[in-house]
Amino acid sequence: MPDRNSILVCVTCRAAGEPLEAPAERPGARLYQALMNVVARRGAPVDLIAVECLSVCKRPCTIGFSAPGKWTYIYGDFAPNERAAETILDAVALYAATPDGLIPWKQRPDALKKGVVARLPPLAPRNDVDLPEAAE
Amino acid sequence: MPDRNSILVCVTCRAAGEPLEAPAERPGARLYQALMNVVARRGAPVDLIAVECLSVCKRPCTIGFSAPGKWTYIYGDFAPNERAAETILDAVALYAATPDGLIPWKQRPDALKKGVVARLPPLAPRNDVDLPEAAE
Repeated sequence: MPDRNSILVCVTCRAAGEPLEAPAERPGARLYQALMNVVARRGAPVDLIAVECLSVCKRPCTIGFSAPGKWTYIYGDFAPNERAAETILDAVALYAATPDGLIPWKQRPDALKKGVVARLPPLAPRNDVDLPEAAE
Repeated sequence: MPDRNSILVCVTCRAAGEPLEAPAERPGARLYQALMNVVARRGAPVDLIAVECLSVCKRPCTIGFSAPGKWTYIYGDFAPNERAAETILDAVALYAATPDGLIPWKQRPDALKKGVVARLPPLAPRNDVDLPEAAE
């Protein structure tokens, strides 16, 4: 499996009570576009994965960090703009630097501390045959 | 990859404001024990995976459904008892019967409709080489 770190982006996220926007105008889609802009500008080594609904509808905009063999994290409460995209890209660089997806608490940006929705342990390796431990 | 369906169980889940229980007395650990009892009684073909914190601390008890190639779902608000465990086992049987983890809305039990915390698309296959489409 490649060692790429991914940002999942809910492109259907929208604020409750707002009139229904066209799909491309939804806050989630706008955050996805902002992330694409910042990734392109930085040449960041990360995959952006658009997802139709991460089922966190009460905390738009919602994203996730995922990579093979790492904990997956889901975060909410992001604004649909480039400033939020910059924060997310800074944070995924910290995630990418960990072996297991666990960013030490003291290094964790406030947006991740406050915005955490859920996390999941690395699942894929659990289903494979036993692999030798990394030398660390 | 085996085609097993898993229930992730947050064994550290506890109610806010309660005195700190011994680990085995935490609501999450009690739900895990109740699930083990019901799985054994039914001979249910499901893996129980104990997880130390799914980071959904405001909605105990929290669980997840996961299987290779399927959407992963995270649910909260379960009581730590065998009645909840029965509900969860009934629901995971519906999940197991789907090819993609998406239980049709009309079939979805109320506990899953109200308790959903988040969902994630199937990630592992996305990182593999292109596989031929199933004939369907």
